[in-house]
Amino acid sequence: MTEKVTRREILNLIGAAGGSAAVLGASAALGLMPNSAAASIPQLKPLDPANRKSVAILGAGISGLTAAYELSKAGYDCIVLEASHRPGGRNMTVRSGDIIDEVGNRQVCEFDDEPHMYFNAGPARLPSTHRNILHYCKELGVELEVFINESKEAYVQDDNMFGGKPIKNAMFTTNARGFMAEVLAKNFTRQELDQPFTEWEAERILGMVRSFGDLNSANEFRGSSRAGYADIDGGYLAHGIQKEMVSFRELLKSSYVNRLLNANEGETGPILFQPVGGMDKIITGFVKTMPERVYYNAIVTAVELGDDSVNIAYRYKGMENSIKADYCLNCIPTHLMSGITHNFPRDYTDAMLYVRRGEAYKSAFQAKERFWEKEDIYGGISWVNQPIRQIWYPPHGMFKEKGVILSSYDFGGGMHFTRLSQEERIEAAISQGEKVHADYRKYVEKGITIAWNRMNHMLGCAARWQRGAVMTSDEEKLMHTLRSPAANRHYFIGDQVTLHAGWQESAIVSALWSVNDLHNRAIGNSAGINPAPLV
Amino acid sequence: MTEKVTRREILNLIGAAGGSAAVLGASAALGLMPNSAAASIPQLKPLDPANRKSVAILGAGISGLTAAYELSKAGYDCIVLEASHRPGGRNMTVRSGDIIDEVGNRQVCEFDDEPHMYFNAGPARLPSTHRNILHYCKELGVELEVFINESKEAYVQDDNMFGGKPIKNAMFTTNARGFMAEVLAKNFTRQELDQPFTEWEAERILGMVRSFGDLNSANEFRGSSRAGYADIDGGYLAHGIQKEMVSFRELLKSSYVNRLLNANEGETGPILFQPVGGMDKIITGFVKTMPERVYYNAIVTAVELGDDSVNIAYRYKGMENSIKADYCLNCIPTHLMSGITHNFPRDYTDAMLYVRRGEAYKSAFQAKERFWEKEDIYGGISWVNQPIRQIWYPPHGMFKEKGVILSSYDFGGGMHFTRLSQEERIEAAISQGEKVHADYRKYVEKGITIAWNRMNHMLGCAARWQRGAVMTSDEEKLMHTLRSPAANRHYFIGDQVTLHAGWQESAIVSALWSVNDLHNRAIGNSAGINPAPLV
Repeated sequence: MTEKVTRREILNLIGAAGGSAAVLGASAALGLMPNSAAASIPQLKPLDPANRKSVAILGAGISGLTAAYELSKAGYDCIVLEASHRPGGRNMTVRSGDIIDEVGNRQVCEFDDEPHMYFNAGPARLPSTHRNILHYCKELGVELEVFINESKEAYVQDDNMFGGKPIKNAMFTTNARGFMAEVLAKNFTRQELDQPFTEWEAERILGMVRSFGDLNSANEFRGSSRAGYADIDGGYLAHGIQKEMVSFRELLKSSYVNRLLNANEGETGPILFQPVGGMDKIITGFVKTMPERVYYNAIVTAVELGDDSVNIAYRYKGMENSIKADYCLNCIPTHLMSGITHNFPRDYTDAMLYVRRGEAYKSAFQAKERFWEKEDIYGGISWVNQPIRQIWYPPHGMFKEKGVILSSYDFGGGMHFTRLSQEERIEAAISQGEKVHADYRKYVEKGITIAWNRMNHMLGCAARWQRGAVMTSDEEKLMHTLRSPAANRHYFIGDQVTLHAGWQESAIVSALWSVNDLHNRAIGNSAGINPAPLV
Repeated sequence: MTEKVTRREILNLIGAAGGSAAVLGASAALGLMPNSAAASIPQLKPLDPANRKSVAILGAGISGLTAAYELSKAGYDCIVLEASHRPGGRNMTVRSGDIIDEVGNRQVCEFDDEPHMYFNAGPARLPSTHRNILHYCKELGVELEVFINESKEAYVQDDNMFGGKPIKNAMFTTNARGFMAEVLAKNFTRQELDQPFTEWEAERILGMVRSFGDLNSANEFRGSSRAGYADIDGGYLAHGIQKEMVSFRELLKSSYVNRLLNANEGETGPILFQPVGGMDKIITGFVKTMPERVYYNAIVTAVELGDDSVNIAYRYKGMENSIKADYCLNCIPTHLMSGITHNFPRDYTDAMLYVRRGEAYKSAFQAKERFWEKEDIYGGISWVNQPIRQIWYPPHGMFKEKGVILSSYDFGGGMHFTRLSQEERIEAAISQGEKVHADYRKYVEKGITIAWNRMNHMLGCAARWQRGAVMTSDEEKLMHTLRSPAANRHYFIGDQVTLHAGWQESAIVSALWSVNDLHNRAIGNSAGINPAPLV
């Protein structure tokens, strides 16, 4: 499975062997069969009660809570020190009365106090392939519901395209597919390609292309009912009037041609879920199992690696406190940890300073009316080529009077909004949203915004290890350093030390690896566990 | 909007005018803008109490109940005669203890008695664009949840492909797209096509194609992580090992190449919903508003058109009864109505006899364990090129111990299963299901089956008006006849007299049109309403 086999090589193989047996053999070798591995939750053999160990966990984000939960079950004495007034870190659901502790822009949420009136300001989606976090949802009794990521009924808006008029996603994708298929079908019939397809195979390919693009029998795209009917009653009592095709040239003016045909791929390809009532139900699920272990407003001021312990100093309730623990799991963002007193080795601190942080920005409104439902939208994303980038419609609270609408999600460039005042942010969200929904301003109120690069105790979003297009081996080494335990006692954890930062699954996988490694050392098994970290 | 404009004509237009203004003008004319019409629910002005009218409604399916609901609100005296022991017609949810009244194969459902252990034996999906049925869900307080139709984690199985080994949908579609994109990209660079694209546009198109197929910089498809990783831990701590590409030639052996790249189109393109707890929550929602109006086990024996009434004879509680009503709305399947005494005009009866009926077949099992969840499946369809055709995983009851799995759905050829005994049907479902899930037999029990062409009081599924590939004008005339009121008093209603049979939305649209027409006649406004029926 590690040897790469290209398609051309496979085709040669078929050519040489000439039968389906060869292909089947190849397929098996290529890992066709599904992976049926379960989640990677460790079953830690509980510690001997005579040999208890203590662990200080810095930060009550998803990684810290996962570690505390598993270690507590295995008989460790755990304490979780959280700098903020709330647990969860970036897993943050905002409801009526909640504080958004953005430095210089503290806000109190004024949404109506109802179960469906919330805003997931951080992570909002759980892919069905993220087995570890789903495992914990199940174990902690967190009820999940389907999250709608893509809606063909939502809009695409780009000032460069159709003079800025929004079009339905279905219109965009149907026409782009039709164009592609027509070009493909016409060229395919015109030549043999460089592949020795039989006539039967060529016909089959044409069939695929025609159905993909909804081409007519002349292999032309002339519009498709997939883009919807022009008359709402169409197709029931009277024959529907199909919406006409649009100029593909016009679609090309928008950079969305590069994105909307593969919108449901990667992490958003599988079915997505969200916890019923807010993403932080996972956090409260963890905390409920160990409320006495989590200290809030506990500010770590020093981390000192000792010979047989890790010593933590922290400020709590106006007092200076210290803990001498056998181990420390640390999910404080490394760039913040750099500013806290410590005696980490030099290679550790070099790595800590290398990591940069994302600047994700989100904002949300309470909508007085669920106006989107009148446009057949019940969740999903409208793509807007403006700084707000995306509008998300809530997949929950259907048919209720009001809803919370995500009015911007710029995962890359929060600095744009960070420079604006709260009033300017709100006005930007409204005026850009009006490009999609003309009456937007009439419906939205009580806006809240969150610039993660200014959030207190975090000052940044997901870690960014790569400065170039690919991860260099130097960068891999830095991550490896930061992931390895210092003095065999101190572990950095969280999505910040994984290859897939920004997902809760990564935070959990990191925590579980560290917990496993720590436990192996604690019971004297070895110098650690496999799989070894990167490099 | 009625004039067809082809893309070539648009391109010529652009060529001639040379600016975006021309394109924009064209776009507006082409109906680019979204349709914001609401559902077509009539607001009937209530009848004058001094001038009450009575309506006999034959059949308590979705069309009959819709009509009874609206007419009752407008002050009509309605009675609904239902031949079966239950309301709903094909809207049928099967739970513990329920009877499946298939002629010659009566069954009692033995599923565990739990809210999530149900099977929608008829319609199971509500597209978000079906505004009328969603309107009634809202008005009747029917809670909806998202229905998952497509899951990239579900399987595709075809004996012709990979020697019958199932592969994940993501593997199938990613590889097929990769192949298409590679062919397209290579041909596109090689020639100018017959379209005058600028270099910038050509680059843009190539970008679209590359992202669509996940091609490398040489425009080659060499596998993609969209098909998943070969190692479950891949991509978090260690770099993931991407699943290798498979032989496109192998995929071609399956006819699914013609279907899986456009699986989420048409009626299943929009977001889909299902009522929480079963599709028949819509039926019970309607009935709850007028329980006293619906008579069960009431067998219509004659329908006679009189001069100023419609006279209905029916058997009820062992007695012969008759009703003289001002109007009759009739959703008895036309082929069954042909066998009931009536004095319909000759063109009516010709049309009634022309309509054929579908033979949809479904079956379901109780699963002792939700084994699919271990394979990252939480809803969606596995496509099986066997008589069972489809396996549907329930999108509800996630994480619970058991679930009800749809073990076959053959919408076209129920005759295959109709010929089998119940035991043979069950064994076929198991042995064919084993081709997808090797341990299937171990998990499934208490199977139930339903052949709609043998269901008592229905003897068929959706009406089939077309004998050829398109509807002929003769067929249109027949439908028009059957849709028009006989003697201005008797209306056939239901999806059977629409162009889109098999969807509840059609049944409602039909009922609403008839109700509107009837009301206009009743208040003496005119000889009917617009929009006129077909033709």
